[in-house]
Amino acid sequence: MSKKVGSQTVFFQTPVSILSTSSIVGFKEGQGPLGKYFDRVVEDILWDCKSWEQAESKFVTDGIKLAIQKAGLADIDIDAILAGDLLNQIIGTSFGVRDLHRPFIGMFGACSTFGLALGVGSMLIDGGFYTNVVASASSHFAAAEKQFRFPLEFGSQRPPTSTWTVTGNGAAVLSNKKGGKGICVTAYTAGKIVDLGITDINNMGAAMAPCAADTMITHFKDTGRNPDYYDMIITGDLGYIGHELVLDIVKEQGYSLSSSYTDCGIKIFDKETQDTHSGGSGCACAAVTYAGYLHTQIENGAIGKLLLLPTGALLSTTSAQQGESIPGICHAVVIEKLGE
Amino acid sequence: MSKKVGSQTVFFQTPVSILSTSSIVGFKEGQGPLGKYFDRVVEDILWDCKSWEQAESKFVTDGIKLAIQKAGLADIDIDAILAGDLLNQIIGTSFGVRDLHRPFIGMFGACSTFGLALGVGSMLIDGGFYTNVVASASSHFAAAEKQFRFPLEFGSQRPPTSTWTVTGNGAAVLSNKKGGKGICVTAYTAGKIVDLGITDINNMGAAMAPCAADTMITHFKDTGRNPDYYDMIITGDLGYIGHELVLDIVKEQGYSLSSSYTDCGIKIFDKETQDTHSGGSGCACAAVTYAGYLHTQIENGAIGKLLLLPTGALLSTTSAQQGESIPGICHAVVIEKLGE
Repeated sequence: MSKKVGSQTVFFQTPVSILSTSSIVGFKEGQGPLGKYFDRVVEDILWDCKSWEQAESKFVTDGIKLAIQKAGLADIDIDAILAGDLLNQIIGTSFGVRDLHRPFIGMFGACSTFGLALGVGSMLIDGGFYTNVVASASSHFAAAEKQFRFPLEFGSQRPPTSTWTVTGNGAAVLSNKKGGKGICVTAYTAGKIVDLGITDINNMGAAMAPCAADTMITHFKDTGRNPDYYDMIITGDLGYIGHELVLDIVKEQGYSLSSSYTDCGIKIFDKETQDTHSGGSGCACAAVTYAGYLHTQIENGAIGKLLLLPTGALLSTTSAQQGESIPGICHAVVIEKLGE
Repeated sequence: MSKKVGSQTVFFQTPVSILSTSSIVGFKEGQGPLGKYFDRVVEDILWDCKSWEQAESKFVTDGIKLAIQKAGLADIDIDAILAGDLLNQIIGTSFGVRDLHRPFIGMFGACSTFGLALGVGSMLIDGGFYTNVVASASSHFAAAEKQFRFPLEFGSQRPPTSTWTVTGNGAAVLSNKKGGKGICVTAYTAGKIVDLGITDINNMGAAMAPCAADTMITHFKDTGRNPDYYDMIITGDLGYIGHELVLDIVKEQGYSLSSSYTDCGIKIFDKETQDTHSGGSGCACAAVTYAGYLHTQIENGAIGKLLLLPTGALLSTTSAQQGESIPGICHAVVIEKLGE
């Protein structure tokens, strides 16, 4: 039997257990609506480091170690770490996993990285190669602002379409062993790059909405499922503007997304009080929202079937300065509680 | 039966066919000792583009299309493209694969990316998820110099330990179908990060030699094989200095590497006439040396069993400026001619 259905979706013959998750975030995320769900809130986002980048690596190291510990495993039990981030040459991750001394599969999907790592990690387990792997993704507000926009000290004004990069690391331990209260990855739809020509680097929601809709519709077609199959459908970091656009695009394609569709960038910050404009973003946005909030909701039965769609914008400052448009990608992962 | 042996090595139950390879390189690589083996030599490395980065993307697009064509397939037959490069946010690859409209699994292993993509791609095929995937990696001398060191116009002097970034793209089509004259990927050893504290960004060979030795020795221990099992053992882009260091480190660990051990960075340029100092480097170094030269050698029977070890340095300009050392990683792939 082929494990692949339709054009882009794979089903796992043996559902892949999520043994544990970990979420470590910055103070702003801790003050947001999901604050109580995170494992740890770090008050100072420099976290005793000399640079924002080194602080991001500390989120990665501590986050992955915590996930392994919560799974009741030791570092040596992990066959591979699949992880990435948005810093140039993914140094947040490389320096973060350096001292764990485990095989490292570096991934790059911009802010879709957590979905990519969960999907590929699940294939490596269901394929029979590995017993336990870690999927992880991180971002850091100050490191991202410095690299992609302006140093914080410059005090530039943020346009209303802009989003706020989440500081933190979200990780999950995937395994072929039963455990983790029966929460499993059951399917993965790998995304294609979609680029409709948006060039406004302060409107990532608009740039990424088409790829989110593309992967979502492909998933529905591949699986024969309708949106109402899922208790929640949640994109990664489109924010308010991208969320509205996805609703429109998907409707045009004949699918009706009910109120069960939302976005991690909408969930993580409070619109009225936290001044993040269009919402949250960054590799950690989907990663910590899943690892903290959503995983708990599945655990306690509030969500039975989840379609998680982390979204990424595949630009760099160089490509933007050269006038290129912003290609987007979205990787979809199905996570369900199958019973212990 | 577990497909995994030892700590880091997986064997493929059904050897994964390499249906085809493609290698497109710049003029300097075309003038080198391997020139006649490459599919295409581009005289002007700007290749009618407006920037070095866009030219790198053109190498990627044309390289991947050529590999698919040589395999007798159409774009739509490819289930996923696993690829990456060293430009910030891997824009060489993202923009290069954008218009191919196939699922994209972005990889980051610095100059080890080709090995990572071959290894992970083979697992996704042997795991039963995909029929055909492309593994690909690219680099561009001028884009790399501009990003990591100085613009070419600055005319900075290169120290003797420095290496020369290869311009080009190397790609391979992996498949669960027989073909490609029986050349197959039979095993993969995923690398760990190794960092012995080297901080000289002009001596990547020294920074990466320890990770190359680590993965090589792990591979020997995992498989119970000795170096003489292989007709050729070849690292990715250590150049002359790193090659010497690997010989020393591996000898200390009790393994004797004979003259069958060499390095793609040594093979690709002529030491006497091409003025590249310590040799070639960059993601394309191992990729085009395999896709052009080595694949042909296996095809014609000159090499029966190959251990290919692409090597990567996981630094960024930011990490170097902050005084960090250079973590290295090396992914090992076994490629053999099993008969048609």
